[in-house]
Parts: sequence; C-alpha cells; structure tokens
Amino acid sequence: MLDKVLRIAELYDFYGALLTDKQQRCIEMHYLGDDSLAEIAEEFRVSRQAVHDILRRGEQLLVEYEEKLGLVERQRRDRETIAKVRACLEALPAETRRLPETDQALELLRQLTDR
Amino acid sequence: MLDKVLRIAELYDFYGALLTDKQQRCIEMHYLGDDSLAEIAEEFRVSRQAVHDILRRGEQLLVEYEEKLGLVERQRRDRETIAKVRACLEALPAETRRLPETDQALELLRQLTDR
Repeated sequence: MLDKVLRIAELYDFYGALLTDKQQRCIEMHYLGDDSLAEIAEEFRVSRQAVHDILRRGEQLLVEYEEKLGLVERQRRDRETIAKVRACLEALPAETRRLPETDQALELLRQLTDR
Repeated sequence: MLDKVLRIAELYDFYGALLTDKQQRCIEMHYLGDDSLAEIAEEFRVSRQAVHDILRRGEQLLVEYEEKLGLVERQRRDRETIAKVRACLEALPAETRRLPETDQALELLRQLTDR
C-alpha cells in the first residue's frame, strides 16, 4: 500500500494538473491527506462508491499519462546520473574537494535533486 | 516563424503523445517535415482549411499542457544548472581536470544534456 501511495504521489506531482478539480481534490485528500473514502464522501456529499470511482479514474489517467510521456521515468534516470556525478566529485582527492569550483558544483547538483 | 517552429517542436517532444494520431501526423509533417498545408491536405484528402484547424488545435493543446505542467520550462532550468556545473568543473586547475573522476563527471553531464 505504501508503494502505491508513493507511486500515485509521484505521478500526481507530474501530471496532477491534467486531472479535473474533483479528481485532484479526491487524490489530495486520500493519498496526500490520508482521508478515508467515507470522509471524502461526506465532504463532497456523494456515496463512498462515487469517491472510489473518482479516485480510480484519476489514478488510471495518471498511469496513462506516464505510459504515454514517461517523464517520471526520465526524471528517475536523470537523478541516477546526477547521483553518479556527485559520487565522482566526492571521490576527488581532499585538496581538490576543497576548491571553490568543486564546492559550487556540488551545491548546484544538490539543487537539482532536492526539489 | 523559426522561433515558432522550434517552440512547437520542443513542446511536441514532451507532449506530442497526448495528441490524437491525426494531430500528431499533421504536426510532424508540417513542423518537422516542412510539408505545406496543401500537401498535407492532399495526403489526408481533406481541405486546406481542415488541416489548418487540426494544426491550430494541436498547437493550442501543446501550449495548454505546458501551461499546466511546465515540464519544458523545468527542463530548461535544469539544463542551465547543469551548464553551470560543467563550467565549474571546466574551471578547475589543469591537474585536477585530468583526474579520471573529473573526466567521468563531465562525460555524465554531457549525457544529461545531449539527448
């Protein structure tokens, strides 16, 4: 279940803006805010089954967007490459690591992944 | 006009897969293949005006996807940061630049941007 939540959160981060307002709100409440289907149903004054269907449709769309565009996967590969660059710089001899150029390069690489 | 072609090509590279087959084919022929509206109209056996409308709708959608998701802009910023990292490494003293770690880091950075 945790894997699923993380996966949906990751896809939602990229493609959430393409969903309808209601799909967005339900996914935020359920996956990011941890609300139960019953709580969301009460908020929207619809049945628990309706919330279930909205969530399911939203999730399906997120998965389809990734199947078509693959941008989450592209970011994953890029981050792996950036991690390798950091490892290279961190493996430099101590006197080189202390140079301001190395320091600045490492700081920029951190900005790329800590987002 | 060249600016527009480059912009459409860039957006199409990210979001093209979300368009219909016909929108994709028209954009590829017109912007990437340089076919005229008349040539595309002949290929699809539709009017020149119909091709114009398909292109216009496809372009609108690409612009809307970018307005919502901003992934082309995100990549542009990332590439700027990567260029700064490369500049830092290229500014290292010659004896440091010759180290295999620096060399490998630069090669990995090239892989990130030459795609």
